[in-house]
Amino acid sequence: MESRFDVRNDRDLTMLVDFYELTMGNSYLAEGVGDQIVYFDMYFRRVPDGGGYCIMSGVEQLIEYLENLRFTVDDINYLRSTKAFSEKFLDYLSTFEFSCDVWAIPEGYPVFPNEPLVTVRGPAIQAQLLETMILVTINHQTLIATKANRICRVAGHRPVMEFGSRRAQGYDGAIYGARAAVIGGCAATANTLAGMMFDIPVSGTMAHSWVQLFDSELEAFRAWANAYPDQCLVLIDTFNVLKSGLPNAIQVFKELRAKGHEPLGIRIDSGDITYLTRKVRKALDDAGFPKAVIVISNSLDEHIIKDVLAEGAQIDSFGVGERLITARSEPVFGGVYKLVAVEKDGEIVPRIKISENEEKITNPGFKKIYRIYDQDADKAIADLICDNDEVIDESKPLTLFDPVSTWKKKRLIRYKAELLRKQIFDHGKLCYQSPSVTEIRQFAQEQVQRQWAEVLRFENPHNYFVDLSRKVWNAKHNLLNSYSEEFSGK
Amino acid sequence: MESRFDVRNDRDLTMLVDFYELTMGNSYLAEGVGDQIVYFDMYFRRVPDGGGYCIMSGVEQLIEYLENLRFTVDDINYLRSTKAFSEKFLDYLSTFEFSCDVWAIPEGYPVFPNEPLVTVRGPAIQAQLLETMILVTINHQTLIATKANRICRVAGHRPVMEFGSRRAQGYDGAIYGARAAVIGGCAATANTLAGMMFDIPVSGTMAHSWVQLFDSELEAFRAWANAYPDQCLVLIDTFNVLKSGLPNAIQVFKELRAKGHEPLGIRIDSGDITYLTRKVRKALDDAGFPKAVIVISNSLDEHIIKDVLAEGAQIDSFGVGERLITARSEPVFGGVYKLVAVEKDGEIVPRIKISENEEKITNPGFKKIYRIYDQDADKAIADLICDNDEVIDESKPLTLFDPVSTWKKKRLIRYKAELLRKQIFDHGKLCYQSPSVTEIRQFAQEQVQRQWAEVLRFENPHNYFVDLSRKVWNAKHNLLNSYSEEFSGK
Repeated sequence: MESRFDVRNDRDLTMLVDFYELTMGNSYLAEGVGDQIVYFDMYFRRVPDGGGYCIMSGVEQLIEYLENLRFTVDDINYLRSTKAFSEKFLDYLSTFEFSCDVWAIPEGYPVFPNEPLVTVRGPAIQAQLLETMILVTINHQTLIATKANRICRVAGHRPVMEFGSRRAQGYDGAIYGARAAVIGGCAATANTLAGMMFDIPVSGTMAHSWVQLFDSELEAFRAWANAYPDQCLVLIDTFNVLKSGLPNAIQVFKELRAKGHEPLGIRIDSGDITYLTRKVRKALDDAGFPKAVIVISNSLDEHIIKDVLAEGAQIDSFGVGERLITARSEPVFGGVYKLVAVEKDGEIVPRIKISENEEKITNPGFKKIYRIYDQDADKAIADLICDNDEVIDESKPLTLFDPVSTWKKKRLIRYKAELLRKQIFDHGKLCYQSPSVTEIRQFAQEQVQRQWAEVLRFENPHNYFVDLSRKVWNAKHNLLNSYSEEFSGK
Repeated sequence: MESRFDVRNDRDLTMLVDFYELTMGNSYLAEGVGDQIVYFDMYFRRVPDGGGYCIMSGVEQLIEYLENLRFTVDDINYLRSTKAFSEKFLDYLSTFEFSCDVWAIPEGYPVFPNEPLVTVRGPAIQAQLLETMILVTINHQTLIATKANRICRVAGHRPVMEFGSRRAQGYDGAIYGARAAVIGGCAATANTLAGMMFDIPVSGTMAHSWVQLFDSELEAFRAWANAYPDQCLVLIDTFNVLKSGLPNAIQVFKELRAKGHEPLGIRIDSGDITYLTRKVRKALDDAGFPKAVIVISNSLDEHIIKDVLAEGAQIDSFGVGERLITARSEPVFGGVYKLVAVEKDGEIVPRIKISENEEKITNPGFKKIYRIYDQDADKAIADLICDNDEVIDESKPLTLFDPVSTWKKKRLIRYKAELLRKQIFDHGKLCYQSPSVTEIRQFAQEQVQRQWAEVLRFENPHNYFVDLSRKVWNAKHNLLNSYSEEFSGK
């Protein structure tokens, strides 16, 4: 999606790579396996905050990275200075041309643990090199989009504004965090640069400093009404909400109305939200301003919003800052990028990673994902991870089974099977057009509605089924058994 | 500090600004107060994780931002499109020249709640505009430097490597997070770009994918030993640490020694650290490799490191990822930027922000900070926030008092008083040279040693004294009393 303005998407992040991707690349080349075709899957293992699903986000930035992937002379000189690389490898990097195939789940889809969000097929050196950037890009934005979606869900029809730039973890935390927040459902951001880059609504009026600059709060509000007569929203907690801010606001609102303008409303940034907003709502109504809105913005998250709304707080809109932009309650999205297959003599050979931690065992092979919907309700039933060669014939019954308790089976008749992923690069060439952020936001809302209420439940949601086809399950268990036999004698 | 390579510090982040800074600027101009000289303080209210101090970080990036502060034609066109600004204001922005004075505590110093880390003096529009970037810059890096310092403290003499890029909150979270982690004490980072930009050590060897690419683990280790005979560190948990990874590593180490090379050691990324490392240490020792190091990297933080070392885990070095790079246990650093004074008719008039939340009340006035040391022990006793005009005469006794329980006093005789802050911009011109990251890291370690052990304590540390001079205390309480009287009748 091209912005109307300078979108600054030509940033070269090639060197944002874990050093071991490069030492491995160097060794792949030395061992003559640099061009061996391999398959990597990016997936995650659990939904943050005990939620039922995540919102896929970050594909557009992944594309920008891949489009700008190249090593400059400075990069090569730096790498040479570390004395860790052969000249042959540095030559390889300096003439590097990206040639991988990449598949990804489009942004906005609800996504679930253990399904490959991104798959890369290509020469070992290249596919390895992408690990760090694929992970940081998808991990970060999916984390924030998912958190935003939780917050917006409890806020219901009340718009949520993203206000967190100042507490973000770095500039991109603020910029791409704002993007992901809007994908997750936020109505606007306070981040002007994000507004400009992604063509999303920006919002904001005044800070406490505006009020403090003047000799009195009343003077400050008057000056604001003068500068923004038709967008007059004043912050009323600089000194005392009920004894100072509120009466001053009402006085200025009356003066504004006398001049033919209607005030927008007030914002409160501290104190007891339920108590203050009920008092403020009544006072504004009594003074003849029932349409003046109340905006709240004091370290909010989904839990506080849920509680104060249940208590009867009178709120029209929320400004949510640090707890959204950092996903404070669970600030790590644990996506991983694992080798799942190699091509040998033209055949795809599945590869597995076993671990003392069972959850770290991978699903081997080159795979695709079908999302299976109930044909009548148009609600998602399960995601089915198939071998890339498998094709589901919707005219025939489909039997799903639990990959752990394999005797648990479900036979489907009236269903639809939709492929979840799109190819975004074909032999290194971009073959996908990202929608705009506004379109993705809309798409996310539609797709969330295609989930059953049980999956959307806020606490202890239903565990959405991510199943393996019989072929994938067999491949995995054959590999596990062969290693188990190998180690059993030791 | 100039890197030997392209440091990419010319990024224009002017538009990374909360929209309300701009609407306020527009209104300051409309009200004719745009050029009024104001003072803003940036400070924080509490140390994350219940720690005793934070490590100041981010000044170099703040400087880069201020040096690149300018509005492009695209920026102005975008702002015009929002219909929120007068042409007069857009003209002002397009010819904007930064002219503020800025003071900051140099990077690496231990810093404490409620003392101004950064102070800006300048025209209202300009000083206001800087809020978002000052906060996101200092908040983020100080958060990570502080977390890294906690982790490195428990690791003691064992080097800690920063491995978290893939789980960082965006690209800058990874890049500047790595910088801050080294300032906090990390020995190296896995982030190649950070290594290049900040001239800090990078490290990393192999991932599980290296092992998976080959037909067997033994083959994979042999290939690695072949590519890096003198830096052979192998990851031994791809299939099974004790039954597969360890015996294969020892076999390859023996082959390597037979060829005249000594192995570096092994890394484990899963499983029970204490159990595995004790087994691995003994096996390596028994096999004749007592110098082979054991590196551990599995969702570590200061608590796990403390526990496994206490249990007798055999570890030489730590790779710390997601819990460091996101400061997972407390991922928000709550720095604020508050107006503290305005100049009227050549006089500095203190301004205050009162709040229903007492902790949100500001310290008014244009101030400076002395750090007071015990002359004999060279340990810090307290920080004293003074009016900018006050000068401490070390030849005379100094009386400190608690700003809340004012009867608690302490009279000092043999002390040193060192000014904590440096001016970094003088009327918009840079007047400060940032040290290198390596120098800052060294400085931080020295300055932490100038704190008493009680302040460094890991749990429930002593509350370091941040006191107000009598003059600052009086100014604050005069303002509080005047508002209290104004509201008491309402």
